[in-house]
Amino acid sequence: MKATKTNPGNFFEDYKVGQILTHATPRTVTEGDAALYMSLYGPRFAVQSSDTFAKAIGYPRAPIDDLLMFHVVFGKTVPDISLNAIANLGYAEGRVMKAVYPGDTLSTVSEVIGLKENSNRETGTVYVRSTGRNQHGDIVLQYCRWVMVRKRDKNAPVAEAVVPKLKDRVDPSELGAALPAIKSAAYNYDLAGAPHRWGDYEVGEKIDHVDGMTLEEAEHQMATRLYQNTAKVHFNQHTEAKGRFGRRIVYGGVCISLARALSFNGMNNAFHVAAINGGRHVSPLFAGDTVYAWTEVLEKSEIPGRTDVGALRTRLVAVKNQDCSTFPYKNDKGEYAEGVMLDLDIWVVLPR
Amino acid sequence: MKATKTNPGNFFEDYKVGQILTHATPRTVTEGDAALYMSLYGPRFAVQSSDTFAKAIGYPRAPIDDLLMFHVVFGKTVPDISLNAIANLGYAEGRVMKAVYPGDTLSTVSEVIGLKENSNRETGTVYVRSTGRNQHGDIVLQYCRWVMVRKRDKNAPVAEAVVPKLKDRVDPSELGAALPAIKSAAYNYDLAGAPHRWGDYEVGEKIDHVDGMTLEEAEHQMATRLYQNTAKVHFNQHTEAKGRFGRRIVYGGVCISLARALSFNGMNNAFHVAAINGGRHVSPLFAGDTVYAWTEVLEKSEIPGRTDVGALRTRLVAVKNQDCSTFPYKNDKGEYAEGVMLDLDIWVVLPR
Amino acid sequence: MKATKTNPGNFFEDYKVGQILTHATPRTVTEGDAALYMSLYGPRFAVQSSDTFAKAIGYPRAPIDDLLMFHVVFGKTVPDISLNAIANLGYAEGRVMKAVYPGDTLSTVSEVIGLKENSNRETGTVYVRSTGRNQHGDIVLQYCRWVMVRKRDKNAPVAEAVVPKLKDRVDPSELGAALPAIKSAAYNYDLAGAPHRWGDYEVGEKIDHVDGMTLEEAEHQMATRLYQNTAKVHFNQHTEAKGRFGRRIVYGGVCISLARALSFNGMNNAFHVAAINGGRHVSPLFAGDTVYAWTEVLEKSEIPGRTDVGALRTRLVAVKNQDCSTFPYKNDKGEYAEGVMLDLDIWVVLPR
Repeated sequence: MKATKTNPGNFFEDYKVGQILTHATPRTVTEGDAALYMSLYGPRFAVQSSDTFAKAIGYPRAPIDDLLMFHVVFGKTVPDISLNAIANLGYAEGRVMKAVYPGDTLSTVSEVIGLKENSNRETGTVYVRSTGRNQHGDIVLQYCRWVMVRKRDKNAPVAEAVVPKLKDRVDPSELGAALPAIKSAAYNYDLAGAPHRWGDYEVGEKIDHVDGMTLEEAEHQMATRLYQNTAKVHFNQHTEAKGRFGRRIVYGGVCISLARALSFNGMNNAFHVAAINGGRHVSPLFAGDTVYAWTEVLEKSEIPGRTDVGALRTRLVAVKNQDCSTFPYKNDKGEYAEGVMLDLDIWVVLPR
Repeated sequence: MKATKTNPGNFFEDYKVGQILTHATPRTVTEGDAALYMSLYGPRFAVQSSDTFAKAIGYPRAPIDDLLMFHVVFGKTVPDISLNAIANLGYAEGRVMKAVYPGDTLSTVSEVIGLKENSNRETGTVYVRSTGRNQHGDIVLQYCRWVMVRKRDKNAPVAEAVVPKLKDRVDPSELGAALPAIKSAAYNYDLAGAPHRWGDYEVGEKIDHVDGMTLEEAEHQMATRLYQNTAKVHFNQHTEAKGRFGRRIVYGGVCISLARALSFNGMNNAFHVAAINGGRHVSPLFAGDTVYAWTEVLEKSEIPGRTDVGALRTRLVAVKNQDCSTFPYKNDKGEYAEGVMLDLDIWVVLPR
Repeated sequence: MKATKTNPGNFFEDYKVGQILTHATPRTVTEGDAALYMSLYGPRFAVQSSDTFAKAIGYPRAPIDDLLMFHVVFGKTVPDISLNAIANLGYAEGRVMKAVYPGDTLSTVSEVIGLKENSNRETGTVYVRSTGRNQHGDIVLQYCRWVMVRKRDKNAPVAEAVVPKLKDRVDPSELGAALPAIKSAAYNYDLAGAPHRWGDYEVGEKIDHVDGMTLEEAEHQMATRLYQNTAKVHFNQHTEAKGRFGRRIVYGGVCISLARALSFNGMNNAFHVAAINGGRHVSPLFAGDTVYAWTEVLEKSEIPGRTDVGALRTRLVAVKNQDCSTFPYKNDKGEYAEGVMLDLDIWVVLPR
């Protein structure tokens, strides 16, 4: 018997700074995936929904949703990075660098860019930079992520800590890579659902996205399998029943995609997520919970060299089982308010 | 803060007769949508299931299911017409006017054709004619619908009532528009599942479709999001728990599609829904309910100028949690029997 | 009223040895079906997931999963073979004979190859050989199956018993038909997820596939409808609540596909299911159950005339609600251990 033919996942002491991990299972993304993505979250941005709308403004056809692409690229890293992870601690320097279309094949490679053992010696933080590429080798997405990973052996020696210096935010000059030149005159605001352009938003503006969406077990399982994300906690009620929460924990990306889809109501023309500056899964989402979301505009920037589009840096907050009319976020002590699940800092792009 | 960036929906006093509403989010329909439609309802009509069958009889390829097309066209109207609706009161003059294929992009425009305030002055009925078009501007579907909508302000003045005169039924001369000339000799009845042609059905004939289908929350939510239908009552358990029924109300179109799919058993060759003469959602469908259906043939008509196909006007009735061997419909007082959910009057087309 | 327009299904006395049944509803398989298959089970075999991987090794593009093809071909037989079946007793001589690609249209014909009344005269066993073909008439799949079917009338006379002699296993010379010549040098083991080739497995080797997957009602219903499998027990909670188990019974094929998807962890390069030698659904799977799986290598064989790939005959066992670290199978008396659901004997193909 060779029990080792199955993947036990990596433990903290298995990683080395500079190590390159080639993740398994390249994935051709299709119109079928796009339909499932729509069915699972209900996004309504015109560019991703309509070939004719997308063509009119300069795309060759409707692109794959930026977050669907993100989830597919991310999913591949799970068996090598987070199978023994305790917590997904953060994201930084996430950049969508090329549009993805049905028929493109995505694969992912990660580099270990930092390692820091925790003082209890039982766990440590692993920092990776993951790069998604299409079938031509073009980079479509790059992002950093750090996770807390168990050690196999508490006493295993580890190298000196390396903590990478990551940028607070992606620079606006890096935001246009995945965008064709947008033919602004052909952008139909009636068909897009609202008249608000980049110039209509102000720093400090908060938008309650109003609607709520209740999540079912079948929905998040179908979504997470679609991304070939194999993390056990999302799928195995037999073991999770005995776990910390007594039930399956929803893949954090499902919360991101639901919040993004809800954000259409108020951000109708923010058709492209160009960057993920940072993000934190504050508390878990479970089946049966209802997801609400709100946005705050943190920063407003031109994209150097472009007059067709502008960027908004926004905080997208997802909250469970309460509406967002009061913009729930943090309390006086700086702690997250009850019900807050997601605190995501992104750059979105709108026509000018 | 600009709370007005989110769509609060229209109220009764916001509508004017003659007003044109261009609905948001054009939608390219794909093979992915067709697969999801099959997965969610289980239709088995050979024409929509098989490119080879469809080509043999004269289509360029398998068309998109008529009702999938209906739901997509309908879904676009929700944010502008029925976000503040209390009830979906009826349909009339629904005509499928052109076949839709994967790759076609659908968009919808509605005209307000009638308005009538209710005597309580708190609500009123809004009548619209909605028109779905493909990317070439060809009309693929047109139908009238009336809904009861709340007033924002009970005391708001409203214009004099206008109630449109709608036809009892679509005229048989209007039924063939979406159909190519059918090569009857190539229509394989073995592959279609039964030998019964148009001529084999009689007015007054009732058919119990026998099978029952239990609906899950994830299923109706996935279906309704696929159509980008945003009506809150279908998705938000957090608010619906405090609502009239204590739970999410299933989009009426899900009941229509389930009944239509069940109707294959007994109406195997009724491959095209050409018209919706009228329809009423008698009572709501909820997750956990089992849907049964039966059909009564109301009228039998040739389609002027065509010898390849004929039309049957049928009443398609959906019933919950009881089989249809006794054809449950109305009691002696003319009230709908318990369990009846849908009373739909349609024209279907069969080979002659 | 013509109640006979609906399909009552066949009863034991309706079958005759040599009878040919042409099953309804040819089905074009698309990228949408492939996406749903991934979403419902989470397979990660690189060949079926990636056009670029598949092309590199010799396929024209990523083929449809062998089991998705099996389920579609099988689904068509249900209305004619197993609508009145009490039990699906076994499979034999299952051979995948041609790769299927998105756009291919599948249809199925069955021949009755055996009939044997049971001594109680109330039921009998029907043996069929079912053949799936693509739009060119090429055979893509052939398999034998036997089911226990009710008699309509206990006293109906039946012909003398004919029990077909079926092979214990498909001969290795018949395993390569659906495979192009594999360019082994282009097979990327990093992208496939593990380095283990055909030569790395040994007869007697057992592999615990480790992961578990909990099944939801919406998931198995969506899967089973996707295959247009109409067996009532999978869909109708209203009647099943009064049935033997009090709930819907999951289509056995769902258990097969879940076990196969789980088997990726340990059998990463077994990218093709070439044959089903035999199979038994030992006990039913229900929504809420968690599926685990393990494999035993029963036989190892070259495929005559081929140096690119080799075959492993494996027993794939699916177990519910317990992990497979102890390889649960049969007890000392030769009875299946509690929790065993599936005992499947297949040939899988790996690169050499």
